[in-house]
Amino acid sequence: MTCWNFSAGPAVLPTAVLKKVQDELLSYQGSGMSAMELSHRSSLFQHIITDAENALRTLMNIPDNYHVLFLQGGASTQFASIPMNLLKDKKAGYVISGMWGKKAFEEANKLFPDRTVVIADSTPNNHTEIPEIHIENETEFDYIHITTNNTIEGTAYHTIPKFKQTLLVADMSSNILSADYDISDFGLIYAGAQKNIGPAGLTIVIVREDLIGKNSEHIPTMLDYQTYVKSKSLYNTPSTFPIYVSKLVFDWLLELGGVPKMLEMNQEKATLLYSTISESNLYTSPVHPDFRSLTNIPFVTGDTELDKKFVTEAEKAGFVNLKGHRSVGGMRASLYNAFPLEGVQALVTFMKEFEQREGLAK
Amino acid sequence: MTCWNFSAGPAVLPTAVLKKVQDELLSYQGSGMSAMELSHRSSLFQHIITDAENALRTLMNIPDNYHVLFLQGGASTQFASIPMNLLKDKKAGYVISGMWGKKAFEEANKLFPDRTVVIADSTPNNHTEIPEIHIENETEFDYIHITTNNTIEGTAYHTIPKFKQTLLVADMSSNILSADYDISDFGLIYAGAQKNIGPAGLTIVIVREDLIGKNSEHIPTMLDYQTYVKSKSLYNTPSTFPIYVSKLVFDWLLELGGVPKMLEMNQEKATLLYSTISESNLYTSPVHPDFRSLTNIPFVTGDTELDKKFVTEAEKAGFVNLKGHRSVGGMRASLYNAFPLEGVQALVTFMKEFEQREGLAK
Repeated sequence: MTCWNFSAGPAVLPTAVLKKVQDELLSYQGSGMSAMELSHRSSLFQHIITDAENALRTLMNIPDNYHVLFLQGGASTQFASIPMNLLKDKKAGYVISGMWGKKAFEEANKLFPDRTVVIADSTPNNHTEIPEIHIENETEFDYIHITTNNTIEGTAYHTIPKFKQTLLVADMSSNILSADYDISDFGLIYAGAQKNIGPAGLTIVIVREDLIGKNSEHIPTMLDYQTYVKSKSLYNTPSTFPIYVSKLVFDWLLELGGVPKMLEMNQEKATLLYSTISESNLYTSPVHPDFRSLTNIPFVTGDTELDKKFVTEAEKAGFVNLKGHRSVGGMRASLYNAFPLEGVQALVTFMKEFEQREGLAK
Repeated sequence: MTCWNFSAGPAVLPTAVLKKVQDELLSYQGSGMSAMELSHRSSLFQHIITDAENALRTLMNIPDNYHVLFLQGGASTQFASIPMNLLKDKKAGYVISGMWGKKAFEEANKLFPDRTVVIADSTPNNHTEIPEIHIENETEFDYIHITTNNTIEGTAYHTIPKFKQTLLVADMSSNILSADYDISDFGLIYAGAQKNIGPAGLTIVIVREDLIGKNSEHIPTMLDYQTYVKSKSLYNTPSTFPIYVSKLVFDWLLELGGVPKMLEMNQEKATLLYSTISESNLYTSPVHPDFRSLTNIPFVTGDTELDKKFVTEAEKAGFVNLKGHRSVGGMRASLYNAFPLEGVQALVTFMKEFEQREGLAK
């Protein structure tokens, strides 16, 4: 690795996976065909998608009464699909804990303006905390939507809210397979692959079987979960190569010890970075300590010009994609499963040296 | 190549492209990052998507008043997006020249049952011909939808119907970049990448600029062409790796001589196969000679058991994915741009030997 890639997504992939992809790029398992060239109806690809599903089921302990679907279009397409599929005759309650939760709400609200409400919103404190949900009557809601990890703002749910009389729907794009959640707490989970799973162009949906097919006659076939359930995600050509690479990532995760091991490794990486921030005179975390993400860690110097200088010098030193999202500013280090501890160690060394050079160290 | 891959899609890719992908799989242009790991907001990826668009514009002579959009979800998603975006206050007329045209109609009809009509249908003759369009008044239609090449049935439009008072919309999934069509004959062209462009997971839409944004407030953001126009296909994370590989395919096409050269090469390949079929005692083409596709060539022995035997023996000899679609039966050879002449030469040799072995040769 000649650089450390802190991109929030598409993000770094395990080197072992990339080497495997490279090795068999011209001939997948000696077939004479690239994985990109496999017919999605071939037995070779059937094995890939089945193995991918089974590996994900093992990694996340997905109960048998949940479907695992492989879709396209990103979380942004799910923002429409979710209300179209899950809104029956009640309301949808949205928690706005960051930009993506806001977008999810806005899309649902565009399509169903009278039936979508915000039930918690951390906008007043710049999304530096996860807002508390206050609802009087769960039975008024077809579902409650949360974002388990806020990629941009760097907050995360460490405890999932529980509901007995409504469903929980979660955008898990930036911490799926990093956090050890109980699937049965959710009615539906979705995630774009390009952060913690595999290449962009693949979206995973995990949905409880009793929830699908209720609105099928009214919505576009390709936005209807029933379509993917009935066809085992092969109604039309899926994102075959991203599914193949994701399957290799799942195998890599299983080999290393699964989600508990990832959580341990991610805690080690995040602790190193957070402690460097808290021990420094220069850097601060904008996020309340109770809600800090393990996978997306923003930090600032408090001086916009100095932030810029940091990002520029870091990039020259091989630390790329550290610039914070335009809505937050400063820096952001995304430390997904595939990001190695060595990269965080190198970053904190660089941070300390930068602080020294700027004459601001303790 | 240890096998000849006749898949209808995902299909064979140019070996030179696969080698390039393999060479730089771990470090795109010496960046230390795989093309799969590039942030879609990075300048490295911005160059890829801009170069891809420019190369496609050159290859297809796309006029400046047309947008080129990079989407996800396949042609099947377009079956919904097209009526949602293009239906204003008139009707949509669909030509059913095969299974995909039928699916396009059915989806539009599901969403807009009162405003979608079939204006030509080759179902009565098993889609062995392209049906003629008979409409009395063009002005009754917001658009007319055709499928330029029927992947399953093996027919194609060699002359595009012209309309002066309505728009032509074309599913060009299986002969984009193989046929030399005039873009200005169309209001909108769409194509899944996985046949003649690149890996699955990418859909290209080419749309005249005055047609977009009219229905934006009513339709899901991710199905609205305006979203992709405004963001230059970067509203959310696109299918970055398939776009990268497609860009390499476009470069390869430009280097070889573009669409005219492909047309010449495809004619040579198709002629070799069609003449072998017509000269044999065993094989026949179900398709009327005036409408034969250059890219998808079905053939049958007339004996279902013998077809099966052919497919099995062919596969053992390294000719894979020759089995015809379940709706047509027999065999089908898909000969897209990346499929080499040598593969067709090998196939016709095998076909003649099989005919000899079966004691059916002239």
